[in-house]
Amino acid sequence: MTRITRNLLLDCKAIVQEYIHRTPVLTSTLLNEHSKVDLYFKCENFQRSGSFKMRGAVHAISTLTDEQKAKGVVTHSSGNFAQALSLAARSIGVKAYIIMPNNAPQVKKNAVRSYGGEVIECEPNLPSREKAAQEIVLKYGATFLHPSNNFNVILGQGTATMELLEDHPDLDYIMTPVGGGGLIAGTALAAHFFGRHCNTIGGEPFNVDDAYQSLKTGKIVRNESTDTIADGLRTELGDINFPIIMDYVEMIIRVEEKEIIEAMHLIWERMKIIIEPSCAVPFAALLREKDFFKGKKVGIILSGGNVDLGKLPF
Amino acid sequence: MTRITRNLLLDCKAIVQEYIHRTPVLTSTLLNEHSKVDLYFKCENFQRSGSFKMRGAVHAISTLTDEQKAKGVVTHSSGNFAQALSLAARSIGVKAYIIMPNNAPQVKKNAVRSYGGEVIECEPNLPSREKAAQEIVLKYGATFLHPSNNFNVILGQGTATMELLEDHPDLDYIMTPVGGGGLIAGTALAAHFFGRHCNTIGGEPFNVDDAYQSLKTGKIVRNESTDTIADGLRTELGDINFPIIMDYVEMIIRVEEKEIIEAMHLIWERMKIIIEPSCAVPFAALLREKDFFKGKKVGIILSGGNVDLGKLPF
Repeated sequence: MTRITRNLLLDCKAIVQEYIHRTPVLTSTLLNEHSKVDLYFKCENFQRSGSFKMRGAVHAISTLTDEQKAKGVVTHSSGNFAQALSLAARSIGVKAYIIMPNNAPQVKKNAVRSYGGEVIECEPNLPSREKAAQEIVLKYGATFLHPSNNFNVILGQGTATMELLEDHPDLDYIMTPVGGGGLIAGTALAAHFFGRHCNTIGGEPFNVDDAYQSLKTGKIVRNESTDTIADGLRTELGDINFPIIMDYVEMIIRVEEKEIIEAMHLIWERMKIIIEPSCAVPFAALLREKDFFKGKKVGIILSGGNVDLGKLPF
Repeated sequence: MTRITRNLLLDCKAIVQEYIHRTPVLTSTLLNEHSKVDLYFKCENFQRSGSFKMRGAVHAISTLTDEQKAKGVVTHSSGNFAQALSLAARSIGVKAYIIMPNNAPQVKKNAVRSYGGEVIECEPNLPSREKAAQEIVLKYGATFLHPSNNFNVILGQGTATMELLEDHPDLDYIMTPVGGGGLIAGTALAAHFFGRHCNTIGGEPFNVDDAYQSLKTGKIVRNESTDTIADGLRTELGDINFPIIMDYVEMIIRVEEKEIIEAMHLIWERMKIIIEPSCAVPFAALLREKDFFKGKKVGIILSGGNVDLGKLPF
């Protein structure tokens, strides 16, 4: 694996920033008073494609060779990475094949298509997804890009934190949700190289606490259930991001489903911004452990805002 | 009436900016493509108290004499001005009495109280509201501040546009909703004095088109119905703001209820921000008259984000 350096992250940021929005950092007097914490929300819900995933997708495609680019990229995802890879690929001029389960909501397939991705349907299980992706690789020579367990994706996700630390260099903590592990791994690297004394903490639902269990046991643990409203966090860590998480993440705080919904409602109502359930998890974790964070400066990566407005939990 | 000058507006801004957020101006590639217009959204939904009304409230209180301040302020409102006046008064150290109809939702009364205002209930009709306000004036010597038909309130509301034009000096149009007329009057003055070639256009629901009818006939016309989802726009113009609107507003575009809901949904879904129905009206008006605005640079004042998340129209 490439040695991880400060310059590697700076090179990544230089590439990524051409294709993304520099998202605003919002603050809220009310939420600061409510939590007794000095909060800085990095609004990746306003990012192109509606989530931070655009960053990693752009970086992973950009670092391919011209020959690879000419043959396109493929991933399997029914979530934010599907949309992000489609839009990133179109922005760079590369073809994107997106494997989606045939029971994925029509609205998600349409979103991918609207960003220029070609949807390929498969049976809704992991072997079918992997087989379909493999077929595209063999047929077109396309490069498979994993949504979270890919080193260049991980670096790309870290650029949100690099921007946040440019705006607010003296954060004590940066918090992210933990799903597949790409965001928290990239965040932890960025906090390590660019923070002054900044530690990375993850938020994870109790119901899908694979990352918490993996950190505790030192080996990748699988989820026993996928029963959480935070649908972006049902995925599991991988062999590329797990070692980074082991080395650079301070801890993972688990939260109840009810706490996720409350935190989401609080951000909608008080900050007037739309975040998806997964995105509310780190703020829920902070509220659960208020005393720990009291008086600190905490950055929270608001990971995404792709939510079905017709199906809200409140 | 005080002569309206550029310096009067600058003095107002200097006072107001101490107590408010300088709200961000957001853009959206997707909505620009959708509308074929270059759009700049001034996010007063992120303003303290959740709407632009904070600006006028701060200015109206600040310009009182010390003696007046010591005796407090009173208004009748069940909407955003009630919350704004409460918070503005508390910020300046002045007592606020808020007359609210006894059938106003508990959540609105609680919001006013949470901002420090004293709620005084009355029967839900205009004579009762005015009588209750008059009683407070007589009993405590408090100064009555009208939510929209007050010159200092009008000037305060214009500061959102002054900020917007500092950020984007070459706007062709600025659009606002039209309810009581305070926002559009202040906006039109600011656009006149600080825009390069910037005209002000209002959006108004067909169902409560008093401002459209008033501009057409040259005299203040009353609404025949209050049946609109844009609950902030059910009020009518007054004798102080109407002459300003007559002189400085280019036109008012009326929209259907369905168009308001669609515009609101589009902003929620694409921009990931929460706006209230009234706030969606100028964007709905722009979409209705797309051809007129094609290729122009248009600022839209997103007036507020105080919406009951449990009662969405979609």
